Amino acid sequence: MKQFAHRIDVRTDGKGLYDATRPIAAWVRQCGLQTGLLTVFLQHTSASLTIQENADPDVILDMADFFQKLVPDNPRLYRHTIEGPDDMPAHIRAALTMTQLSIPLMQGELALGTWQGIYVFEHRAAAHRRSIALHLLGE
Amino acid sequence: MKQFAHRIDVRTDGKGLYDATRPIAAWVRQCGLQTGLLTVFLQHTSASLTIQENADPDVILDMADFFQKLVPDNPRLYRHTIEGPDDMPAHIRAALTMTQLSIPLMQGELALGTWQGIYVFEHRAAAHRRSIALHLLGE
Amino acid sequence: MKQFAHRIDVRTDGKGLYDATRPIAAWVRQCGLQTGLLTVFLQHTSASLTIQENADPDVILDMADFFQKLVPDNPRLYRHTIEGPDDMPAHIRAALTMTQLSIPLMQGELALGTWQGIYVFEHRAAAHRRSIALHLLGE
Repeated sequence: MKQFAHRIDVRTDGKGLYDATRPIAAWVRQCGLQTGLLTVFLQHTSASLTIQENADPDVILDMADFFQKLVPDNPRLYRHTIEGPDDMPAHIRAALTMTQLSIPLMQGELALGTWQGIYVFEHRAAAHRRSIALHLLGE
Repeated sequence: MKQFAHRIDVRTDGKGLYDATRPIAAWVRQCGLQTGLLTVFLQHTSASLTIQENADPDVILDMADFFQKLVPDNPRLYRHTIEGPDDMPAHIRAALTMTQLSIPLMQGELALGTWQGIYVFEHRAAAHRRSIALHLLGE
Repeated sequence: MKQFAHRIDVRTDGKGLYDATRPIAAWVRQCGLQTGLLTVFLQHTSASLTIQENADPDVILDMADFFQKLVPDNPRLYRHTIEGPDDMPAHIRAALTMTQLSIPLMQGELALGTWQGIYVFEHRAAAHRRSIALHLLGE
């Protein structure tokens, strides 16, 4: 059994979902394993991870809209406002989605479904560089 | 250290939670490990996974109702409607719950709490066959 | 490759977020690995796990408030009321957050971001002792 650890950055440009499947899958392929387990861990609390449909681009727009309405950027709703009106709602949206994902590796490929993509979900208004810790083990 | 990979299907019959603990635990037992880590990964974006109480059947009915009200099947709320009025809300409900679960194995058994069951949460109205990728490693 | 399994308890005192980073990190350090994967699994369905900002204490108060408003303790909303008015909403809040977290270990340390803490999110009104199963593997 072997293991590999790595870090990648994903640049975001305001609220929305950013497909990170390609750089993650490229690193996994480079490790050369056939069977194993990949863990994707986002090192932030105002962005998150989600696995979503990568076929119709409207899906990720509707997704972002829903979370924006459910957790509005209204400073009167929160105590924590010193980092801007979009910071506390970003933490809540992150808590409602995922910070970490683990995906089995089978026959040398991530066991993603046909339409599944790995997305970084940026919850803040400004552009950010988001850091992802990757861990892979297997044979 | 050994590892095992497998796929199982869970048949769903419309919206609701379907207990998948038994087939998953049966496969884990068959692998014959004492200590390890099981990963359960659902290969879909309009259904999801959740760990919930398996004692009172009302719990999973209330759970399904809550998500139905929080994310209604109202096509006027979404851009993505070409796959039916229940598709986009299904993606959102999936994002709000989990696509993947990892559970430690201790003394030959999954370390589930007394009342914890592993459920497939079907978010679409029609019956589906949902595919789960399983990965187990340990000794 | 080595693996370790362990259980810790976290005492909660009513609704809110309880930082469990310290006892978890202490156990990981004691295992003496350099690279690996930690899995944290909460053995309950009316409490959950979340990774959140540990800088401004207001964040976890706002977080608890949001979930309280989104999923109110109103028995008229639920069938499952026999365990008290706060039990069913606790299950729903648990489903909306996480039951399990996996975190890579790099250079002997958990790959948590600068402001990330591991929290037990208690969703019930009374004090509880919450049990966490830990699994670590690596080298």
